[in-house]
Amino acid sequence: MGEFDLIARHFKRPVRRSPLGVGDDCALLAPRPGMQLAVSSDMLIEGRHFFADVAPQALGHKALAVNLSDLAACGAEPLAFTLALALPQADDAWLAAFASGLWALADAHGCELVGGDTTRGPLTLCITALGEVPAGQALLRSGAQAGDDLYVSGTLGDARLALEALQHRVVLPDEVLAAARARFERPAPRVALGLALRGLATSAIDLSDGLCGDLGHILEASGVGASLDLDVTMSLIASNIYRTSAGVQFGLDFWQQCVLAGGDDYELLFTAPPQRRAAVQAAAQASQTPVARIGHIDSAPGLRILDGSGRPVDARFASFDHFG
Amino acid sequence: MGEFDLIARHFKRPVRRSPLGVGDDCALLAPRPGMQLAVSSDMLIEGRHFFADVAPQALGHKALAVNLSDLAACGAEPLAFTLALALPQADDAWLAAFASGLWALADAHGCELVGGDTTRGPLTLCITALGEVPAGQALLRSGAQAGDDLYVSGTLGDARLALEALQHRVVLPDEVLAAARARFERPAPRVALGLALRGLATSAIDLSDGLCGDLGHILEASGVGASLDLDVTMSLIASNIYRTSAGVQFGLDFWQQCVLAGGDDYELLFTAPPQRRAAVQAAAQASQTPVARIGHIDSAPGLRILDGSGRPVDARFASFDHFG
Repeated sequence: MGEFDLIARHFKRPVRRSPLGVGDDCALLAPRPGMQLAVSSDMLIEGRHFFADVAPQALGHKALAVNLSDLAACGAEPLAFTLALALPQADDAWLAAFASGLWALADAHGCELVGGDTTRGPLTLCITALGEVPAGQALLRSGAQAGDDLYVSGTLGDARLALEALQHRVVLPDEVLAAARARFERPAPRVALGLALRGLATSAIDLSDGLCGDLGHILEASGVGASLDLDVTMSLIASNIYRTSAGVQFGLDFWQQCVLAGGDDYELLFTAPPQRRAAVQAAAQASQTPVARIGHIDSAPGLRILDGSGRPVDARFASFDHFG
Repeated sequence: MGEFDLIARHFKRPVRRSPLGVGDDCALLAPRPGMQLAVSSDMLIEGRHFFADVAPQALGHKALAVNLSDLAACGAEPLAFTLALALPQADDAWLAAFASGLWALADAHGCELVGGDTTRGPLTLCITALGEVPAGQALLRSGAQAGDDLYVSGTLGDARLALEALQHRVVLPDEVLAAARARFERPAPRVALGLALRGLATSAIDLSDGLCGDLGHILEASGVGASLDLDVTMSLIASNIYRTSAGVQFGLDFWQQCVLAGGDDYELLFTAPPQRRAAVQAAAQASQTPVARIGHIDSAPGLRILDGSGRPVDARFASFDHFG
């Protein structure tokens, strides 16, 4: 079966929102009047972003999820995406499973595949996601103000816990690994929360590289600093193995690494003025997304990590840098 | 130097047309009222689309050129692009040269880099190009009508000639190789012609896989057939080595393969009704792009290749299929 047949079999479906989908030189999108188009591209590479034995269905999910997470962080509504795919061989069963994971997430967000590219090569995926946001309402990294509260959605550190186990650096009970692995392989992009935060949050970013590193991007772009409540932040780890052992298992440093610099959380980190606390909680409820207040923005530059009594903790966590 | 510094050094420049460029979770584009957005993604892989020893400046050019060529084929005006880049190592000199080739072509078309991704991996590039086209005016593959003239821009076969030489299947004199290699490594996307053909051409495609294969896409999408004048088409090979040897060197089959199924030409193949011949030539002149009439569209399906006296030639040329 040739390239064109493979594409048609697994990736060509009629478009509903877009004027033109897969099959021509370009796809065509028709943004609504007054809307800006948000664009995000991510490339995923075997051995770097996923393992060779990843379930193709999970990979299809994650490849799109990381891009939808970028749209969420901007408060954009997903519209469409393109998929460029390099494959070592054209395996029909693999493609069917990959496509099923991709379509399930795409359909859940009303986001349609409109084009792309397929070629032979080491397994590599590049998705470009396109979303709509009313002009001037996109959530940016640069809007945090001194005095703003600092929030994060969901839970933290579970994806990193899975990564540590999958790379055989720690051993987890089966059910703990399964839960952590689901977080690592099937992150849920916080699209509904991002939309609900338009007009409320002063800045936002999605957590791909790790809490401290990604917070650093907000601080740098906004020209501010932050204080982080370590106890509240550490309470956001979901895994039972941490709670039941009070962090003794694997050591507290390990758990702090997971939560503060774990990466792959795909939660939203955002800021909002204290007078909008009720509105932020209402947005969290409306989008059925837990949100925790983990600190605040300071005018003094830098990141201060504070313990429960407000004393600085000597913790330094760099972001995960792919060339570090 | 870390990933973020590398990106900033070579790929972060202020945007002029777009509301938000590199550096946030998403870029923001503001399409003008009444405009649709044309989107195209292409992935380029070492060993498949370029050689390991390719000059990085040429690679920067070509990676963007193949996407701008897709916009050209739709009659879209380039606006912006994203770049996802996997690199085996972070080499500053390589990136500087790559970026210079990329920027030169981007600037020539007023197309700005608005975002992307950088990671470590086998050298892989994925560019998504975005352009604007007035609603309903995009050139599609599906509009060819029986009786339409069939046109192609520029010259054909030179890129394939270079590929054959670079893969040591033929030996070319230095100056012939240099000229052919320039066509292979630095294709000029026919953006101005694509814009000039809006409202004139009934269908269009860019030649990436080879004339016969890409023509096949128009025929299939339009539900028509075509007759191709082989003599006129073969006259479009630019290389002196063909003209001076009358095709004897390497044999006529070789040259027909280059022209009819060569690939990598990045010319525009398009159709227009005979009553628009003068207008098509005016569009060609206005865009300073040579255009040749190489055949016509038939209602009978299939592709007929005819010699100078209108007799069918027994020539079968499949498209270049990456999974063939």
